[in-house]
Amino acid sequence: MAARSARSGEFDLIARYFAPLAAGRSGAFGLTDDAALLDVADGADRIVTTDALVEGTHFRPDDPPDRIAQKALRVNLSDLAAMGATPEVYTLALRISEERGDDWVAALARGLAADQTRYGVTLIGGDTVDGVGPAMLAVTAIGRLAHGPALRRSGASAGDDVWVSGTIGDGGLGLQVCCGEAAGLDEAQRRYAVDRYQLPEPRVELGPALVGMATACLDVSDGLVADLGHLARASGLAAEILLAEVPRSTAAEASSFPETGRIVAGDDYELAFTAPPDRRDAVRETARQTETPVTRIGRMRPGSGIQVLDRRGAPVSVARTGWRHR
Amino acid sequence: MAARSARSGEFDLIARYFAPLAAGRSGAFGLTDDAALLDVADGADRIVTTDALVEGTHFRPDDPPDRIAQKALRVNLSDLAAMGATPEVYTLALRISEERGDDWVAALARGLAADQTRYGVTLIGGDTVDGVGPAMLAVTAIGRLAHGPALRRSGASAGDDVWVSGTIGDGGLGLQVCCGEAAGLDEAQRRYAVDRYQLPEPRVELGPALVGMATACLDVSDGLVADLGHLARASGLAAEILLAEVPRSTAAEASSFPETGRIVAGDDYELAFTAPPDRRDAVRETARQTETPVTRIGRMRPGSGIQVLDRRGAPVSVARTGWRHR
Repeated sequence: MAARSARSGEFDLIARYFAPLAAGRSGAFGLTDDAALLDVADGADRIVTTDALVEGTHFRPDDPPDRIAQKALRVNLSDLAAMGATPEVYTLALRISEERGDDWVAALARGLAADQTRYGVTLIGGDTVDGVGPAMLAVTAIGRLAHGPALRRSGASAGDDVWVSGTIGDGGLGLQVCCGEAAGLDEAQRRYAVDRYQLPEPRVELGPALVGMATACLDVSDGLVADLGHLARASGLAAEILLAEVPRSTAAEASSFPETGRIVAGDDYELAFTAPPDRRDAVRETARQTETPVTRIGRMRPGSGIQVLDRRGAPVSVARTGWRHR
Repeated sequence: MAARSARSGEFDLIARYFAPLAAGRSGAFGLTDDAALLDVADGADRIVTTDALVEGTHFRPDDPPDRIAQKALRVNLSDLAAMGATPEVYTLALRISEERGDDWVAALARGLAADQTRYGVTLIGGDTVDGVGPAMLAVTAIGRLAHGPALRRSGASAGDDVWVSGTIGDGGLGLQVCCGEAAGLDEAQRRYAVDRYQLPEPRVELGPALVGMATACLDVSDGLVADLGHLARASGLAAEILLAEVPRSTAAEASSFPETGRIVAGDDYELAFTAPPDRRDAVRETARQTETPVTRIGRMRPGSGIQVLDRRGAPVSVARTGWRHR
């Protein structure tokens, strides 16, 4: 049991590392009460989401703890953005192995503190559990729907354009770099790709700005093809995308990562959404205002499934193997 | 990887076992969207809490999965009750080892279904992760504050009575039975104690009814002495309790469990609360209306810490060793 003494007990951990994260919000009661208060006097409906990261499945034991924590938070903020909600508060259930010392927890809390400032969210509750075995971070995030009804996956119409934010495939490329598998990248490109994998950039400005403009929306976590498949199925339509239009980073361009691999790799945390063609200018203006690049990559049509087309309009065969996050 | 084939993939698991749990609430979107909608049109503030159970720490690998799931939910409902909130919705982040088959998950979902009916809550989101190592269930529960401000730990005044619901020490006794350590109990008493440990009864009726009547409140999870210590510290007072007044079950009476062990054992999930002496009749009437037994066990006074007194008013020495849930 010597390893146990490497770290403070649960109450000390909470007081030392997590209570400061709750300091900005009176309803969190400094994490000293049984639960937290969510004041809804503004009358805005809330969006609630839960996503967990597990050591060995979603991150590697040697990954920097600040980044692990930030990714755990950000994948949830990405879900909020996909529904059109602005991040507000979150809870964290943390299971850590007894071998992790206070330093590891301190770094984790530092990562959360940085992201709280960046995204305007506050910790309002949590639970820490010791034990053997892999670490797990389960985050539940709550966001405000300030401007109208939630964005859903099911609202697309035939003829709608398909759009994505940012670039697609960088998460998968970053994982390849981490695994020592990516070739052709210089050092800056390698670092860029790893950053994109470990520190996804949830589109917290764009999502809420698309409320009332996009007809359907989700975030790209399982891979563009799989996720657009979800959107198409929920909307009762088919999606058709032009492979050459799917935006890619210069790192992805330089790499040996195949084009068809790029669109099935996951962990991008970009938004994919649909909107009628007569809103193209409005979508572009919204993208400009939120400083989020967007690209039109295809359209919705009657039918089912997702079809990927090459430059000549011929179908491209895409291996639909399930994406593994690690 | 043969063991993996014992169970469905994540999407199948969610569709088969968890989506039915979300069927009663439109804002859950059948668990098919990125997140869930929390409609707050009623204007009532919400209470949010997160608690996780981990295999090997909070439950044993051979415990029945329906009961594991129910306990994971109920400890959160107990936190809501302690703040005066009525359960509304919850999310579940579930990490299961690859060796657990569909049967285990099905039983877990059956347990949740039973408790959803019992407590009027609905699943609105979740995440399931495969992997090696111990299982973990992280629940985030949200409740409605329908009748006034939240009950806090910090509101007690000197002279207030100290009350508890139900009986104290049964959770610890049940754990002893599970570990083969409890003597003197007949079969019915053993079963009763194990039920109390595995299936705590969150006081979801009493808690909300105490809003505006109790001055401070929390739930007894770490042990009566430790938890009243939290309440006393938060209120800037001392708590004084009469050991002989602390209610015990007939099983606890029959057992060899020492009186001072009973009040430091955890996992009771009863409510401990304070109220001015002139509200005694009102507290008893509320207890009657909510069909929840309550007992007055002491009082708050100036000072700090918690003092346990015997029948003659002499201090009883209580070992303050931290309670381990297993």
